Amino acid sequence: MLDLIACQRLDAADPLRVFRDRFAPADPGTLYFDANSIGAMPKDAPARLAAVLEQGWRVQRRRSWSVLDWLDAPSKIGAGLAHILGAEPDDVIATGDTTTGLFKLLAYAWSLRKPGADTVLCEEGTFSTDMYVAQGLRRLLGDGMKLKVVTSEQLKAAIDDKTAIVYLSHVDYRASRRWDMAELSKLATAKGALTIWDLSHAAGAVRIELQKSGADFAVTCGYKYLCGGPGSPALIWMHKRHQNRNWPSVCGWMGHDDTFAFEKEYRPAKGPKMFQAGTPPVLGNAAMMAAVDIWRDVDPALAAEKHGKLSQTLIALVDQELSTFGVTVTSPRDYGLQGGHVSIAHAAAEQVMGAVLDAGVVCSFRGPDSIRFGLGPLYTTHAELWDAVQRIKTVLQKETWRDPKYGKAPI
Amino acid sequence: MLDLIACQRLDAADPLRVFRDRFAPADPGTLYFDANSIGAMPKDAPARLAAVLEQGWRVQRRRSWSVLDWLDAPSKIGAGLAHILGAEPDDVIATGDTTTGLFKLLAYAWSLRKPGADTVLCEEGTFSTDMYVAQGLRRLLGDGMKLKVVTSEQLKAAIDDKTAIVYLSHVDYRASRRWDMAELSKLATAKGALTIWDLSHAAGAVRIELQKSGADFAVTCGYKYLCGGPGSPALIWMHKRHQNRNWPSVCGWMGHDDTFAFEKEYRPAKGPKMFQAGTPPVLGNAAMMAAVDIWRDVDPALAAEKHGKLSQTLIALVDQELSTFGVTVTSPRDYGLQGGHVSIAHAAAEQVMGAVLDAGVVCSFRGPDSIRFGLGPLYTTHAELWDAVQRIKTVLQKETWRDPKYGKAPI
Repeated sequence: MLDLIACQRLDAADPLRVFRDRFAPADPGTLYFDANSIGAMPKDAPARLAAVLEQGWRVQRRRSWSVLDWLDAPSKIGAGLAHILGAEPDDVIATGDTTTGLFKLLAYAWSLRKPGADTVLCEEGTFSTDMYVAQGLRRLLGDGMKLKVVTSEQLKAAIDDKTAIVYLSHVDYRASRRWDMAELSKLATAKGALTIWDLSHAAGAVRIELQKSGADFAVTCGYKYLCGGPGSPALIWMHKRHQNRNWPSVCGWMGHDDTFAFEKEYRPAKGPKMFQAGTPPVLGNAAMMAAVDIWRDVDPALAAEKHGKLSQTLIALVDQELSTFGVTVTSPRDYGLQGGHVSIAHAAAEQVMGAVLDAGVVCSFRGPDSIRFGLGPLYTTHAELWDAVQRIKTVLQKETWRDPKYGKAPI
Repeated sequence: MLDLIACQRLDAADPLRVFRDRFAPADPGTLYFDANSIGAMPKDAPARLAAVLEQGWRVQRRRSWSVLDWLDAPSKIGAGLAHILGAEPDDVIATGDTTTGLFKLLAYAWSLRKPGADTVLCEEGTFSTDMYVAQGLRRLLGDGMKLKVVTSEQLKAAIDDKTAIVYLSHVDYRASRRWDMAELSKLATAKGALTIWDLSHAAGAVRIELQKSGADFAVTCGYKYLCGGPGSPALIWMHKRHQNRNWPSVCGWMGHDDTFAFEKEYRPAKGPKMFQAGTPPVLGNAAMMAAVDIWRDVDPALAAEKHGKLSQTLIALVDQELSTFGVTVTSPRDYGLQGGHVSIAHAAAEQVMGAVLDAGVVCSFRGPDSIRFGLGPLYTTHAELWDAVQRIKTVLQKETWRDPKYGKAPI
C-alpha cells in the first residue's frame, strides 16, 4: 500500500528535488501533469524575456544582431540540450517547428536513401503531423516515394530491402508506448535503411541515447518535457556520418556557410546548422535558453530514473485507488517500454477529464478514451501524484463527471 | 535650405505624430534608423509578453491552447496587417520565417505553373536568401526547373513564354530601388507567369496594393518596418484565385483542415492557413500582436505619405549637408521608385558607418559602399533626421572614421 507519507519519503530522497525551485511555482491548488503539452516555466524566464525586450529590442535594436547572441542561440540551445538527447553538442540545432523539422529531415534522408529502396515505413496511428509531412513530401517530390503504414506489431518484420527510411515517433502520443531505439536502428541499418525519430514525447522525460543507439536523424518538440516555452523552436539532430552529404531542402541565408558574405550561390553550413533557414525567433530562443541553463546542470541518467519512479508511483496509485471505478492503465507497465506520460483509460474519459480539470488536475484527453499525465522529472513530485489521484477518486466516487457540462474535453 | 525649424514644422503638421507615443522611447542621445532591420518596440509589448508568460505559461499552462488565442494568433495577425499590404484579411497568415515562407510559395507556385513554362526569373543581386531558396528547390525537385538570373534592366524584357514565375524582391535591399508591382504583374500575367513578391524592405514603409496590383503571391518579414519584434514570424499572402489549388509542400497538423480530428490523411486548410505547419511560436506572436494593434489604427495611405516625406527630407539634407564630403544618395530620388530605406554611398562607407554608430546614429552598412537609413513612418521624426545628418557631418568633418578601430562595420 502506497500512502501520502510513502510519497513524501520518495520526494525527500529525490536527488533532483532542488530543481523544482528553479521553476516558477504552480498556482495554489493546481497540479500540473501536462509536461507532454507545455513543460513548466523556468523561474527566470520572465526576467530574461524582459531583458531581451528592454536591452535588445528597445535599446540596442539592430545592433543586437552583433552584440547579443541572437544569431548564435540556435547552436547554443542545441549544444546545451545535447546531453539530454545523448547527442554530441555540435550535432543539434534549435530551429523552426517540429513539423518543419520533420519535413527537412525526411527530405534530406530521402535524398540519401540506398539504391533500390523506395519506401518510407510508418506506424499506423503515429502522430498526425508526422504522417502529413510524409504525405506532403511524397506529393511534392512525385519521384516514386512509397509510404507503407503498418501496425506496431508488424513494424519490425516490415523493414526490408525496399525500406528507405524507418520514420517513427519514439513514443506513441496516446498510449505512451516507447520503441527500443537501439533495436530498431539495428534492424533498419541491417537492411540499409535510415531512421528518423520524432522524440517529442520522450525528450526530457526518458533516457535517450541518440549517438549510442545507431540512430540516423531525430527531431523533437522543445516545449513539452524540455520546458522551452509555448511554441518554442524544435531541435534537429543528425549523426555526423550524414552531415554535409547534401543540401537541406529549405536553403536559406542562416543555413549558408557564410551568411553575411551574401554569396550568389548557396553553400550549406557545416553540420545541422544548414537546417536553419531564416532569422531565428529571438524571443522564443531567449525563453528556451532559460530552460537550457537548467538542463545544463541535470544528469540525464538521474532525470530518467526520477521519471521512472514517478511513472511507477502513478501507476501503482491508479491501480490501488482507481481501478474499482473502471480506470485502467493503458501505457506500458514495464517502464523500459514507456514514454513521457502515463495513460489511463475510462469509458467516459472525455467527461471525467473535464471534471478532473475542474478539480485542479491539469492533464489531457486524447480520443477515444485516454487521459494522459505528462510527468516532468525536474519538478513533479510523488506527493502531487498522491494528491491528484485522490482528487480523481473523488470525481469518480461522486460521479461529478456526469454533469452535462462535461460533454467535450478541451483540446 | 532646410533647417531644424523646418523639420520641426513638418513634424508638427504630421497627422501620424500621435503614433510615436505608442512605441517605447528611444534611449536619450540615440537616433534609430534601423526599421529596415528591427522596427521599434511597441510600448506595451513587454507587458503583453509578461502576461503571456504569467497567465499563459505559468498559470494556465496547457489549458492555454483552449482558453487563450495561441492557435488563432497566426490568422489574427494576418488579418490585422492585411490593410497595410493592400490585402483581404483572410488571405494573410503569420507563420515561420521569411525564408521558409519563400520556399513554401515558390514550391506552391511552381506546382501551378502553366504548361511549357520551366523558368523562375530572378533579379541579379536579389537578397541572398531569396536566391538560395530557389537554388535549393531546384535541387530538391530535380524536375527541370530553370533559374534565369538577369539584371534589373533586363528583367522586364526577359519575361517570356517560358517564364513560370517572376520571383522578385519588391525593393532592393541595398539600393532601395522599388519595382512597380502593378506593371510587373501585368507583364507577367500577359505571359501566363505567376509573381512572387518578397516585401521585406517595403511592407510597413511604402504603399502596397497586393490585391489591386494583380500580384499572385507575397511574403514579408515581420520584424522590420512592421515592428513585429526580433525574429517575429513572416507573413504569407496569396490571392484567392490561387487558394486551394494544391497542397502546400510542408504539410502539418496546424495547416490541416481539422487539426484536432487527427485524421489519417492530410487535407489542406482553406486559404493561406494551409501554410502553417507546426505549433505557432506563441511568444513571438504575442509580441507581434502588440504591433498589429497599432497598425490596426493606421491609414496606410497616410503612413506611405509620411514615409515619403521623411525620405525626401533625408535626401535633401544629405544633398545640402553631406555632398561636399563625398556622400551621394544612391537610392532613387523619385519616391515612387524608392523602398523603405534611403541609401547613401561613401568611398569609406564601412568605416564611416562605424564612426556614425558611435555618434549614436543607428543605421546599417551593406557592402561595398552603402549606408542604409530605414525610416519608420510611425515614429521617425524629421527633426531626428536633421540631428542625424548633423552628427554624420561632424564625423566627416573631423574625419573620426579614420580611426583604425573602424575597420569593419558590424553586420
